[in-house]
This record gives sequence, structure tokens and C-alpha cells, in this order.
Amino acid sequence: MTTTGHELDLIKQHLPAWLETSRQRAGHGMVASYIPELSKAPKEALGITLIGADGECVTAGDCGIPFTMQSISKVFTLILALMDNGEDAVFDKVGMEPTGDNFNSMLKLELVQPGIPFNPLINAGAIVISSLIQGASPAEKSARALEFFRRLAGNSDLDYDLDVYRSEAATANLNRSMGYFLKDNGVLVGDVEEVLEVYFRHCSISVTCADLARMGLVLAMGGVDPVSGERLIPRRYVQIAKTFMITCGMYNASGEFAIGVGLPAKSGVSGGILTMVPGKYGIGVVGPALGSKGNSIAGVHLLETLSHHMDWSLF
Amino acid sequence: MTTTGHELDLIKQHLPAWLETSRQRAGHGMVASYIPELSKAPKEALGITLIGADGECVTAGDCGIPFTMQSISKVFTLILALMDNGEDAVFDKVGMEPTGDNFNSMLKLELVQPGIPFNPLINAGAIVISSLIQGASPAEKSARALEFFRRLAGNSDLDYDLDVYRSEAATANLNRSMGYFLKDNGVLVGDVEEVLEVYFRHCSISVTCADLARMGLVLAMGGVDPVSGERLIPRRYVQIAKTFMITCGMYNASGEFAIGVGLPAKSGVSGGILTMVPGKYGIGVVGPALGSKGNSIAGVHLLETLSHHMDWSLF
Amino acid sequence: MTTTGHELDLIKQHLPAWLETSRQRAGHGMVASYIPELSKAPKEALGITLIGADGECVTAGDCGIPFTMQSISKVFTLILALMDNGEDAVFDKVGMEPTGDNFNSMLKLELVQPGIPFNPLINAGAIVISSLIQGASPAEKSARALEFFRRLAGNSDLDYDLDVYRSEAATANLNRSMGYFLKDNGVLVGDVEEVLEVYFRHCSISVTCADLARMGLVLAMGGVDPVSGERLIPRRYVQIAKTFMITCGMYNASGEFAIGVGLPAKSGVSGGILTMVPGKYGIGVVGPALGSKGNSIAGVHLLETLSHHMDWSLF
Amino acid sequence: MTTTGHELDLIKQHLPAWLETSRQRAGHGMVASYIPELSKAPKEALGITLIGADGECVTAGDCGIPFTMQSISKVFTLILALMDNGEDAVFDKVGMEPTGDNFNSMLKLELVQPGIPFNPLINAGAIVISSLIQGASPAEKSARALEFFRRLAGNSDLDYDLDVYRSEAATANLNRSMGYFLKDNGVLVGDVEEVLEVYFRHCSISVTCADLARMGLVLAMGGVDPVSGERLIPRRYVQIAKTFMITCGMYNASGEFAIGVGLPAKSGVSGGILTMVPGKYGIGVVGPALGSKGNSIAGVHLLETLSHHMDWSLF
Repeated sequence: MTTTGHELDLIKQHLPAWLETSRQRAGHGMVASYIPELSKAPKEALGITLIGADGECVTAGDCGIPFTMQSISKVFTLILALMDNGEDAVFDKVGMEPTGDNFNSMLKLELVQPGIPFNPLINAGAIVISSLIQGASPAEKSARALEFFRRLAGNSDLDYDLDVYRSEAATANLNRSMGYFLKDNGVLVGDVEEVLEVYFRHCSISVTCADLARMGLVLAMGGVDPVSGERLIPRRYVQIAKTFMITCGMYNASGEFAIGVGLPAKSGVSGGILTMVPGKYGIGVVGPALGSKGNSIAGVHLLETLSHHMDWSLF
Repeated sequence: MTTTGHELDLIKQHLPAWLETSRQRAGHGMVASYIPELSKAPKEALGITLIGADGECVTAGDCGIPFTMQSISKVFTLILALMDNGEDAVFDKVGMEPTGDNFNSMLKLELVQPGIPFNPLINAGAIVISSLIQGASPAEKSARALEFFRRLAGNSDLDYDLDVYRSEAATANLNRSMGYFLKDNGVLVGDVEEVLEVYFRHCSISVTCADLARMGLVLAMGGVDPVSGERLIPRRYVQIAKTFMITCGMYNASGEFAIGVGLPAKSGVSGGILTMVPGKYGIGVVGPALGSKGNSIAGVHLLETLSHHMDWSLF
Repeated sequence: MTTTGHELDLIKQHLPAWLETSRQRAGHGMVASYIPELSKAPKEALGITLIGADGECVTAGDCGIPFTMQSISKVFTLILALMDNGEDAVFDKVGMEPTGDNFNSMLKLELVQPGIPFNPLINAGAIVISSLIQGASPAEKSARALEFFRRLAGNSDLDYDLDVYRSEAATANLNRSMGYFLKDNGVLVGDVEEVLEVYFRHCSISVTCADLARMGLVLAMGGVDPVSGERLIPRRYVQIAKTFMITCGMYNASGEFAIGVGLPAKSGVSGGILTMVPGKYGIGVVGPALGSKGNSIAGVHLLETLSHHMDWSLF
Repeated sequence: MTTTGHELDLIKQHLPAWLETSRQRAGHGMVASYIPELSKAPKEALGITLIGADGECVTAGDCGIPFTMQSISKVFTLILALMDNGEDAVFDKVGMEPTGDNFNSMLKLELVQPGIPFNPLINAGAIVISSLIQGASPAEKSARALEFFRRLAGNSDLDYDLDVYRSEAATANLNRSMGYFLKDNGVLVGDVEEVLEVYFRHCSISVTCADLARMGLVLAMGGVDPVSGERLIPRRYVQIAKTFMITCGMYNASGEFAIGVGLPAKSGVSGGILTMVPGKYGIGVVGPALGSKGNSIAGVHLLETLSHHMDWSLF
């Protein structure tokens, strides 16, 4: 039996209890309500799926409930933009630094010249990234992104949650504000509403923990799908994505997560978290109750427990 | 001969020389270019018109050139919004404090709760004020504003400069950004593009120094048109407008202007300045070359000269 | 009987009732506690003294209680620094603009180049002003300031409240922080602790409403003591001081006070307010319970009432 | 021959050429001058020392020149404070998040409640950390820190550069400003000057590349000195330190360094960089010419070259 096999056995044995302990944290959190459709999510839910390189799968809790990717999608649109445009073109438009500000803050755009977003995982940066996806129209760009996400998840049924999409498009005035600010700065080129359509669409792709785990596994294996053996992402772009997931993946609690868990991760306001153990596992978590920084409060606790017991920190 | 008569004689005598001295300052300024159409204005131009309560008029320099009101219009849309809604409703939506920031800054909207614009004369505040003008449609609101401005100027020919309007509407992404930010904050109600249409329209009303002087004279006389004797604005709203003109009328050089000139005034990026000597004169100035804070560099110098020699400061 | 005489009769008649109405506002405020010694002030107290150009005096309420000048002193150290150094030297070191920030904010020192305080009435600016008072030692500078204040108040007994001075010096780490920041910026020259000693001393000068009213009267009369007929301050410096009192005198509620009262004024955290009706009266108010912006909550209400009924706004 | 042996051979072969290529970058940088004594460093210098777990050493360039640790010391005072106080006590006083601001910025202290420094590696945080080192007096605290640094470097001769210490203490008004701000916030307890004495002392410890490499090697080996086999630091505190070095170690170019190099590192304004390859090497670099973000411009380039060729990124 391999080391990983041993580890998986250990995880299988303890995971249900750990999950129930973490689930109790949900009571201290709040389901996101700024996108009205998101507020319908079950507050007490907590689920996890972990997939190994050989395809073996461990699950616990409410891992089957569907939720939208929200900010988790930003990791993969970043990768797609890198594949479409190369490093230099992308980093002309977005920086590489964590900000310490809220994910939807515009302060640094006004305060720090030359007014490009600090990194591709805050909202301002992700909107610019959406504008860099190749395609003749918003529909074509969105179709290319969806197709890319489907291949990474190995799930050709991946699709939009149109209720969430419409709810998001109807209420996202702060994102509109950011879009026009970036256009004024000359960072965002093209029609703001068209760029936002692409952005709202990839945020509203509906997944389960298993989908996130599969997508995470591709990153964990350096860009190669371990099932098919096919390289889906150049290794350098996986490296870039994983680095951003460590420094900026968990909003302005990224530093705390790096100290407590030590794995590349990205969260979304729907309560999802995608993370991975490099070389070993892809992991998808969902827990809709969010802490004060916008991350799944029970999900973060569960990952801290796992990382602590399995000694998974990269550091 | 009245004191005012004496003073007017003195002004008539010296004004041409003072104006030529001030005109030399224009070389140190820059014509606004962020609205492309504005950049066509003659950089070296400087003109002034002063109208007394008895209708007597003193002019000098290029007082006949037309220019758009731009931010000067904000004084009068504020007054119209007060007349339409009353003090309480207006000050629920905009504050009363100078900001020290650039006229188009969004910092304080994000940093200071509850996220209402600090005052009605910065862009964010003026956009909210535009949303408060009564009318069933943007066209009706704009028509009401134009009609009000015509009455104040005693000039039924006052109209839009449509080239400037279109240029402004096409390039004003920062104002769009502000509009959506304010909508997200719940401060701005209604369709952002419709509100901005009203805003861009009143900014693009074309005037001469004489028009500004007549409008200023109505304020100088506490809201009564001295020619017709008709009260056009309730006195309290004139008081409010004049107070804002002292504390916030000259962008973030308002404090310096209050120290150097000491009169209520409002400038626009087209190089216009409307000011007044309470009880005595309305004054319109135009000088398209702007200083670093966005005010007519030669125009401010000319008003400093006049205020100094005539001892006009309110303080 | 003069107009002023009439007005004074009216004031005498109504003032006690107006004061009692305003006093009820004190319950909504808080006595300053960040300087421990200040927290001992009687929360419900409210007093006012008004002195006319002929020396006639109207008082009401608790006008006899002593309190320290705190920020009110900044108006007069500004004037002394102007008399000692001239306009140019002073305005090389401090700006002329209101900030919209809290009186003890350091944000703009870091954000806006060249890092000089925005105006002489916020803490950072007043500390720089204290450094500009002439004198071979902190003791000599303080003695000159005290002597100047005594002459303006016509009260040779004016002196420090040493308990407040010590309490302030012991707890004013934020002012120390500002001092060192300004020294690092090259704006403040000399030893920070020595400059702060001067600053804390003039803030802790103990006065009554009558002292403030007399000092305000000198400003109201353009710098001439109406009792002795002696010019104590050059008129231009009075003009500068009065302008700052309008634009920045009431912390970041200066705009609101200008709209509601319309008179040059300066408040202190001890609950004092010095104001004036130009050409007519000097006014001193005390009411230790402060509103959220740091001004006497009952005192501001009383001045609004007076200004409204007497039509005192400059605008 | 081990893999590491192979790798070391490769490094030995190429390092001189890589170093000379990187050295050419120095011309685009500037030697720090805000501490006068630092400005004497040789701008074109570049040196590196790399030490393997078996004590084998590779050097190139000007690795023998002495320089002061400056901000590099903050990694080790953090560790000492953790050993003295435990995680909870330390993270009550400093946060875990990168800021995106300059290392000496005070903005977030004012803007973000509760006003504790965002992380222990920016100046504000490091000053608080200095206050947490146990000891009855500044001298005792400093002696304990120096002793700890000597053990980690395996160099009992490690000592202060007193010229730099005095230069730093004499000019560090911005650090004083920060100290008093933190004291006002209640974050820093004790006498500000005494805390700063400790801080300036550990910043002015003089080292060579070999010292940094040995200290880095202890971190690379999880806290155990590979030479003596002795555990010098609990593994958890090494993990915490390495995590901060990834997220905040290179000032506000930490994100860029993580993308380009991918190793835990800490730089100082003297031009030093301490980094490591976990499990393999400790690395010390010196190159006094700094880029715009305050890191050794040639040193960063050399580490990018090494990491790229040796595939050292953790991600």
C-alpha cells in the first residue's frame, strides 16, 4: 500500500467526525445575500470531496449539493487568459500583489499608479481577466470558458445556474462601477457590459464538490489530467495560478489561511473552496455560511483540521 | 453718485490693465482635455463681465466667447433639487462637508460610512443631485433644468452645446463608475445612464460671461432678479448655495480661494467662474487655461486682484 | 437706540429659554475622555457670553465655569505665527484646504504630496504652527503665546490649567506620532517634544465664556480692541483667521456649521466654541457634551438658534 | 552522488556567469540613502553564498562584504517572540495579512480596525514584535536577540554595526511616528524609545552572505541545525516564518517574487536577501542597489535565474 493509500484510509476513518465538528462553526457565519439568489443556500450544509491521482475518491457530508463557482472561477479564467495571451500581455493589465483590502475595494485603483488591479483574483483584476479571454463576442468567450472548465472537471454537463446569473447581473452595480473605472484608466478595453456578461457567466457555473476536486486535481498534477494523462494546462501557468492561490486566494484572509492550512486555495461567496495537495489530491469543499472575510467558515475549519492532522502545509 | 457707482468707475478704469496682467498667467495652465471637445478652447483667452443691481455692466477681454457651464451648473441644479425636494430630502443623500480630495475622487465613498457624497459640488454629489430633479423622464428633467437656467440668466436662448454633450457622454466612464457605485450604495435611485444624461446635459449648457454674471447677480441679491424684481429662488436656498460655494466651490483649491478672494464662487473645467459680491454684483469670468486644481489660472488671478483692490472679501 | 441695541434686547429676552432648549441636547453627547482630565467636566452644563463693541455683555447659563481652550487656541497661535513669520513662511508649511477627515487623521500626510498639513486648524497643522512661534526656548514661546492671549482677552490672569496640561502631555501619543511624521517629512523643524510642549501648553490655557467672547470681539472688529481702540492684530491676519474658521473651524462638521450658522467659529474638545458676528459681537460658548464630530452638541444647537432668529449668517 | 550533489555541481559551474549577468541590473537600482550610513555601500556589488545540509558551500561574487540585516532580522525576532510568548499572544498584536502598501505605510493602521499592524514583517508589525521580546531592559532584550541570532548563524562573533545603529536611531522619525501611533492604539505597550532601541539594534546586526545562508539553512531544515543536529526552533514557528516570507517577505513585491522565484525569502534595505530551498539549502545574497520596491535588484534577478534553472519554486 502506498503512502497515499495509507493517508486516504486515515482520512476516510476520521473525516465524518471532523466534518461534524467543523459544521458547528456554520452557526457563527452568514450566507451571502448581496446576490439575492445566493441567500437561498442551506446555512448548515458542509460537504467535501477529495480525489486522488488514481481517481480514488473520499467524500463526506453534503458534498452533492450544487453551488455556483463565483470567485473560484477566477483561477481558471486567469489560466485561460494566460493560455490565450501569454504572461506578458496579462501582467501588463493586472499586477501580482496581494492588497490587504476587501475583494471589491477600489481604493488602490485610485491611490496607486498606474491604476491596474493589484492581482487577478480580486474583483477588479478578474474583470480585466474576463476581458482578455479570446472570442469574437461575449457568447463566444463564455462558450470557450465553459468548454475549458468542462474539460478540467471531466464533466461535459457543467453549465450555468441561470437564476444566479440573472440575479448577479441585475445587482452587480459595484462590479459595473469597477468596470467603468478600469475603462477610464485604459486598463479595460471594450464594452463594459459585454465584459461583465462574460464575468457573471463564469461566476455562475454550477458545480459540486466533485467538480472542484477534479479541477483541483489537474492543478495538483501540474496541469495534466491524471485520468487521461492529457496535459490540459502548461505547467508554468499552473505554477502561476497556484502561487496566486497562496498569496491572494482567500480574499483578505489569504495570509491567515496560508498560516493555518498552507495549501493553494480559492474560495467563492457561494461557500465553495477549491484546494489541492500538490502531487496528491484535488479537494472541493462547500459550506455556504461565510465568515467575516467572505470564506466558508466551516469549510476553512475543516481544511485546517485536515492540514494539521495530515501535515499538508507546503511550508 | 452711489458708492457702487464710484466702485464701478474705479473698476472700469483699471480692469483692462488688470486683465492683461492676469492673462499672462494663462501660459502656466493647461486647457482641459479629458473631454476631447473642451480641448479646442483658446488657451490665452480671458474675459470678464460684471453686472450691478441696476443692470449696469462692465466687461473686459474675451467676455463674448461661448463656453459650457460644466461644474458651474451644479450650483443651480442643487438649488433646483432643493426647490423640488426640500432641504431634508436633499441632505439625506448628500453631505455638507468639503473633502480635500479631487473633484472626481471616489475614496471617501468607500472609506466613510454611510457612503453618501460629501457635498453636492463634487462629481459624486452632483450626480446624486441630478437624480433628484423632478420629471417623468430624463428629457423632462433636463428641460426643467434648462428652463430654470434660462430664467436665472434672463436669456431664453440658453441652450446645449451638443458637441460637448456628446463628447462628454462618450468619454465619461469615471462618472459612470461613480454612478454605479452610488447606486450600489443605495444613494442613487433609478437608471444610471438616465441620471447621467441629465447630468451631462446641464454640464453642457453653453453660456457667455454675461449669462454667468446675470445668474450670479440673482444669488447676490438673495434670489430676487433685480431687473424684474421677481423672486426666483427662496432666500434660504440661496444661502445654502452661497455657503457651499465658499467651502467647496473651487474644487480642492476652495480654501485657498476663500483666503485669496473671499467670495462665493463656482468654477468649471471649461475655464468659467461664476462669483458675486453679495448685494452688489454678479460676475462671470472665462479663461480656459486651468491650474493644477482645475480652476482657470488667469481667472483666479484676476479675481484675487479685484477682491484685493476693492476689499471684497466677506471675511 | 441702535440696531445693535435692539438686537441685544431681543437676545436678552429670549436667550434663557433658547439655552434651556439647547441644553436638552447635551444628553445625546459625550464629554471628551481621551484626555483623562477633561472627562471631569459637567456634561449638562451650557453657558454663553456675548460682548458687543461697546462692551455691553449678555450672558446665560453656566457661563462662569472655567474650561481649557484646546483647539480654540489654534486660531490665535496661527495669528501669532503669521505675525512672527509672515504669510509666505507660514503657508510654506501648512496648506489652506479643509480635509474632510478627522482632526487627528494622518491619512493625507501620507497620501498627498508634499506631505504638509492641509490646514492650520487640524492637529497636524496646529503642531507645525506651534513650531513657528518665535522664541529661544519652549518656555519663551509659550510665554509669548500666553501674553498674546492675555492681551486679546483683556485678562492678565489668563493661565494654564496645569492638571489638564499634564494629562494631555502624558496621553498625547497620537500627537507625538504626528510630530515625528512631520519631522520625517521635513515640515517640522526642531525637537518634537519641545514643539509639543508649546502645543500642549496653549491648548491647556483656562478660560471662561467671557474670555472667549472678548477674544472673538477683537476678531469681529478686524483686529482692533474696541475697548482700548488699540490694534492688536493686522487686519489681513484677522481675515485669514476668520476664513479658516469658516472652512475648517468646526472639525469635519465645518461645512454643516457654515450651512446652519454661517459664522466664523472654532471649537475645542473641552466643549468651548468661540464665534463672532463681524462688526458686532464676540461670543463664547461652553457645553462639554460633544457630538460625534467633536463639537459641543448643545452649543452648536444654541448658535443655530441664535443665527436663525437674528439672521446672522454671512451668506 | 546524491541529487543534491548533482545540483550543486551544476550550480557551481554556472553561478559565476549568472551572477555577472545579474550584476548588470545593479545599474538600474539605487543604494538606500534614508539611513545615511547605508548609502556608503558599493552599488555594483553582488554576492551569494549557498550552504547545503551537509555543510557544503558554494559562493560567488562579493559574498564576503559585510552588511546589516535590516528587515531580514524581522524573521528571527518574530520567531523569538513566538518562542517567548506563544502564537496566541503574538497574533493578538499583529495580523497575518499582506498589505500591498509600502513597508513603512501607516494607512491601514488608521483605516482598518482594530489598528493592529497587518503582519509582522512590515515596519509597524516588526516594532510591535520587538516589544514582545522578553527581557527586563532594552539591553537585556537586545542581548537575547543577538545571542539567538548568533546560535542560528553558528557565528559567535556576530555583532552590531554601531555606526549604522546610531545613524538609524538618529534618523528614524517615521519609525518613531509609528511607535507612538501603535502606543496610542494600545497595541504597543511600554516606552516607545526603549522599544525602538531594541528594534534599531537587531536591524543593525552585521552579517555576511555566509551568515544569512546558515540562518536560512536552519529554516530550510525545519528548525534543526544540520551541523549539530540540535533543534533551535520549534517546527511550527519555522512554518509560520516561512509562510510570512512567501506572502510578505519582499515588501510589496512579495507577490511578484513568489511568481518569479517561488521560495520563502526576506530582504533588507541594505541589499541583503535571505532565502532557502526547503530541505536542501540556505542562501544568502547581497546586492546594495535596490529596485523601486526596496529589494536588491541584482539579487532578485540572480534568484530568479537560479530558481528557473533549478526548478525550485514551491508551486
